[in-house]
Amino acid sequence: MIRRNVLVLPLLMVACVLGLACNVHAEEEYPLENMPMPAHVERGQGEFGVDGSFGVALEGYREPRLERARQRFLDRLSQETGIPLWRAAVENKANFTIRTAGASKAVQQLGEDESYHLAITTTSVQLTASNPLGVLRGLDTFLQLVRITPRGFSVPVVVIDDNPRFPWRGLLIDSGHRFIPVPDVERNLDGMETVKLNVFHWRFADDQGFHIESKRYPLLQKKGSGGFYYTQEEVREVITYARDRGIRVVPEFDMPCHTRSWFAGYPELASGPDPKQSSAIDPTRETTYTFLAGFLGEMSSLFPDAYMHTGGDECDMKEWEGNARIHAFMEAHGIKDGAALQARFTARVQKIVAGDRKIMMGWDEVLGPDTPKDVVIESWRGPASLAEAARQGNRGVLSSGYYIDLNQSAAEHYLVDPLGENAATLTPEQKTRVLGGEATMWTDIVSHENMDNRIWPRTAAIAERLWSPEEVRDVDSMYRRLQVVSQRLEYDGLRHRIITEEMLERMSGDPDPVALRVLASVVQPPRMYERQQLRNFSDFTPLNQMDDAVPPESETAREFHEMAKRIAGGQGTPEDWQRAREWLVLWRDNDAKLQPLLARSFLTKDLAPVSRNLSQVAEIGLHALDDLQQHRAVSREVRERNIEFLKSAGKPQAVLLLMVAPSVELLVEATSTR
Amino acid sequence: MIRRNVLVLPLLMVACVLGLACNVHAEEEYPLENMPMPAHVERGQGEFGVDGSFGVALEGYREPRLERARQRFLDRLSQETGIPLWRAAVENKANFTIRTAGASKAVQQLGEDESYHLAITTTSVQLTASNPLGVLRGLDTFLQLVRITPRGFSVPVVVIDDNPRFPWRGLLIDSGHRFIPVPDVERNLDGMETVKLNVFHWRFADDQGFHIESKRYPLLQKKGSGGFYYTQEEVREVITYARDRGIRVVPEFDMPCHTRSWFAGYPELASGPDPKQSSAIDPTRETTYTFLAGFLGEMSSLFPDAYMHTGGDECDMKEWEGNARIHAFMEAHGIKDGAALQARFTARVQKIVAGDRKIMMGWDEVLGPDTPKDVVIESWRGPASLAEAARQGNRGVLSSGYYIDLNQSAAEHYLVDPLGENAATLTPEQKTRVLGGEATMWTDIVSHENMDNRIWPRTAAIAERLWSPEEVRDVDSMYRRLQVVSQRLEYDGLRHRIITEEMLERMSGDPDPVALRVLASVVQPPRMYERQQLRNFSDFTPLNQMDDAVPPESETAREFHEMAKRIAGGQGTPEDWQRAREWLVLWRDNDAKLQPLLARSFLTKDLAPVSRNLSQVAEIGLHALDDLQQHRAVSREVRERNIEFLKSAGKPQAVLLLMVAPSVELLVEATSTR
Repeated sequence: MIRRNVLVLPLLMVACVLGLACNVHAEEEYPLENMPMPAHVERGQGEFGVDGSFGVALEGYREPRLERARQRFLDRLSQETGIPLWRAAVENKANFTIRTAGASKAVQQLGEDESYHLAITTTSVQLTASNPLGVLRGLDTFLQLVRITPRGFSVPVVVIDDNPRFPWRGLLIDSGHRFIPVPDVERNLDGMETVKLNVFHWRFADDQGFHIESKRYPLLQKKGSGGFYYTQEEVREVITYARDRGIRVVPEFDMPCHTRSWFAGYPELASGPDPKQSSAIDPTRETTYTFLAGFLGEMSSLFPDAYMHTGGDECDMKEWEGNARIHAFMEAHGIKDGAALQARFTARVQKIVAGDRKIMMGWDEVLGPDTPKDVVIESWRGPASLAEAARQGNRGVLSSGYYIDLNQSAAEHYLVDPLGENAATLTPEQKTRVLGGEATMWTDIVSHENMDNRIWPRTAAIAERLWSPEEVRDVDSMYRRLQVVSQRLEYDGLRHRIITEEMLERMSGDPDPVALRVLASVVQPPRMYERQQLRNFSDFTPLNQMDDAVPPESETAREFHEMAKRIAGGQGTPEDWQRAREWLVLWRDNDAKLQPLLARSFLTKDLAPVSRNLSQVAEIGLHALDDLQQHRAVSREVRERNIEFLKSAGKPQAVLLLMVAPSVELLVEATSTR
Repeated sequence: MIRRNVLVLPLLMVACVLGLACNVHAEEEYPLENMPMPAHVERGQGEFGVDGSFGVALEGYREPRLERARQRFLDRLSQETGIPLWRAAVENKANFTIRTAGASKAVQQLGEDESYHLAITTTSVQLTASNPLGVLRGLDTFLQLVRITPRGFSVPVVVIDDNPRFPWRGLLIDSGHRFIPVPDVERNLDGMETVKLNVFHWRFADDQGFHIESKRYPLLQKKGSGGFYYTQEEVREVITYARDRGIRVVPEFDMPCHTRSWFAGYPELASGPDPKQSSAIDPTRETTYTFLAGFLGEMSSLFPDAYMHTGGDECDMKEWEGNARIHAFMEAHGIKDGAALQARFTARVQKIVAGDRKIMMGWDEVLGPDTPKDVVIESWRGPASLAEAARQGNRGVLSSGYYIDLNQSAAEHYLVDPLGENAATLTPEQKTRVLGGEATMWTDIVSHENMDNRIWPRTAAIAERLWSPEEVRDVDSMYRRLQVVSQRLEYDGLRHRIITEEMLERMSGDPDPVALRVLASVVQPPRMYERQQLRNFSDFTPLNQMDDAVPPESETAREFHEMAKRIAGGQGTPEDWQRAREWLVLWRDNDAKLQPLLARSFLTKDLAPVSRNLSQVAEIGLHALDDLQQHRAVSREVRERNIEFLKSAGKPQAVLLLMVAPSVELLVEATSTR
């Protein structure tokens, strides 16, 4: 049963979320830094200290998963505090009691209860939940409450009643385009747990590779993986690892297209005469369905989850329509076009999946008028298909707007709501069919090495959208808390912060590339699909350049932009003025230090004009600050020339956007002309 | 057979090592950055490019370990370059050929051949070795040769003939004082491989805990470990992991003292009436030897290495001498004192170990006139026992001088030579008994969390001392290369650089504690045993303070000191003057930014006076720079007052040394008085 009561926030809570009142009342009442923000929070006075006397007891229903959860919780709390609680807290007298009412389902179900009640007084903590899933969520909330004070580590006195807004809160990792080693997958599962995501959508194959072991059709991995694939044993380990963290694993086997790698071992599946050139399965042969029944049957046994994702996206219809044999089949059967042929294929596959007692899920192309009502639609092309599916009686999951490979800002993702846009006009009953959303980590131009810096921390903002009440949508508060959760995610071993540093060192060959770091802090890869247009990617392109290394969103540029807005709007604080000037001086002077370094490496020499532009942009910014401060009018001509330069400096160069150019433009535009 | 020809360096090589001539000849001939430096290097013209066409073939003798070594090599090369070679390079046409003549021993032996020949031309690479050990060493050398150029990644054209100076090159990890989880152990084995260390000395028990599974005496771990111990299965995994990397695993079971944790399960072993107060095994009971024979027999089967370390250090003789029952035994048997009683115990244990066909090893206390000649002595109290052992016919390993838990500088460790000091006067034959050395990572006041920042990068300098020719001892060259190897060790997953950052964030509760980082960069924990005198450590003291977080050696302070020396000596370059001034300004202004942050956390508030001192030290330094630049004489009184202040600021405060105070003192002393 799916729980989706949208809960009303107490007033105090709203204030906290908006970052307003909480820290006004008393020194003690700082705003909560949790992400996702819990649904109901009641603050009290005082704090509960976390020190060497901390002790945790399990009460009520017990199972090994709860013991492991406690141990993981203590390991993490030890990391957060540096106090070796991992050993002591099991033996100490308990001041933290975890009470579990009963078991959760043997296989985690969509919509299973994840609610919990967390009551913290100055002397004790009580965490209660109806099943282990709620315990997991509550433990993560507690970990995010821990902070340091002049008196020690502590959590505030608080009562939290929390449950998720949506039951499907996913992260897709695409192990099809590129193989992602198990440890890289697992640390991201740790990150998912921290932000309460509960579906790991694991995609195994694409044209580039087939990366999972089939025992029934072993040539799939033997010929299609280049030697890198997950054994079934490893898959089972990951499923157990995920279950321990309250995460379902939904596998995807994308078909009938994106399937070239299947044909290396089984060329008879291919539509075209040359399996190396074909990327679509032949939907006209009966043998295809025999194969798929065998293969999907095997995978349905391997993956315990009730859902089986069979893809269905981006078929190039020309491969079928232009193939004489397939064309003849279509004519013979009255199939009017490729889309109709795909619909016929999908219907056959749906029957196979249903025969394995699984519920089929597919990308929005699989939605048609005859789609069985239990099929779940995952929208990627836009929110329309989600609303359409819901109207038609199908459930859906939103991915459009959560494409974290496209280098959008956290704010953009954050404000996308599964029940917004087209879905806003649904009836209440139709709205219940919108199950949630999924962030999608496609790996066509991201590898296991830099994947973390695309996923985190922005996915935490998406996780909050999917967990927290609809009203929680203050962007400033989100960014403030995002920085905190980003740090905490490092305790999960996530490499989103360190990877940039490591890649800059590699690019420059310098163990401490100070000036390159300064440049890197204010550039971003271009957004959406522009990056692919500016750089020639093949499957084997090394992803070791600046646009691979820097995070999708420059924190420095965002902060500078906020300052510039305040200054240009006449609202700048003395700190704004001082900090803006310090940064502009740093950027202006950086180019002279950086140029010799850039020339030494083939991976940095193309950055020379970007660095020069930064210097000139900063120079213009400093003049603008002077003009504004001294209320000095500038010549219209100079101002126009500067704005023109800033606009051109804001355009992509070396596959990078110089993010501070538009902010300096704000400053220049605020000056007056004579 | 032990190979220990000390090889003569070709002249060019010496120049490279001293960091002099190599980069003078041509733009191409930069000095090698390898650590340890190979024994023989002949440089040629040009370079071999590492790109997507790279291919590696194994020729000659083959075994699975070599396949795994190649894969690990390719994974690492992919990390170093960002080129996805891990998959491609096995399929590509080979331009790198590895030729192995034959197998190494089934169990890695002391003194087994580790030599290799690496010949790099502009078009091909040949690595040849008599067995897989040499291949491992040669692959690591290649990885350290890779660098980035304006044309791409490449290695220089070079012929290297390399073999180690000493056959015993170890790292001790003390899993006795604190349990060190397996992943933390394993990443340090990766680091050991990178710097060609070949002995992992693994210590399992101390008074604080007994951390390995005994199947014969299970109460040892059940009662003595608090639930944290290595299963025998895990131990076997680590041994395999080490063997893959050419590393022997020598276990240590320290006895008869440091053994309180044994008594939790087996109180009858204790010397004293209260096993909780006793830390020495009772050497007077026959049942003790029955137990030890059983236990050591089990461990001798578990660990394949030929050596068994039975400790023997730091016995508090009073526990025996003051015990009436034991005293009576000593009188009855004509044992004059505790030392004689220990010698009798050691002789019994040695017979047990020999009966298990193992060679006994022990700390220098076990050396006596009757010690059998095959017993290996590990010196910890000083180099004297090593020389004494060698004179007496015993072999020895040097640890004194390599105590990396004591926060000495890399230079101090680097200049300690196993054949220096007392050993320098040994005969050539006696010298062959000095097998090498071991860096010792004691964990009484270091945990698995910050262990990496104590071990690395300084242990790389010790590794070079033990591998490279005696003549390689230029400290400036060492520090230059140490910074490079420190970066490369991050590819092994070592956390020595990131841990400081993470701990500063935790201490401050600030996700980006800029000003705290500035302070942290110029302080160090006090050296040797002074830290223990200044801070009250118990077994459960959280290790989460500044002296736990910062590296044992401040790189910034070391660089500043070099600059200050040049400036004070009239040799300062314009860059020295500019950089010194920039740093001093940064430090002077840091306190105002830092104080509000420090007040917010109980882990930082004690740093307030250290921060204030830094500011004042910098202020004095800036005045001194001005005085020196303007040749301005200062009053004797002011100068004396400043020097007095600098001396006091250089003393430990909050368990920290402000490392730049003595450097500023140099500047002040260089000014003239009126």
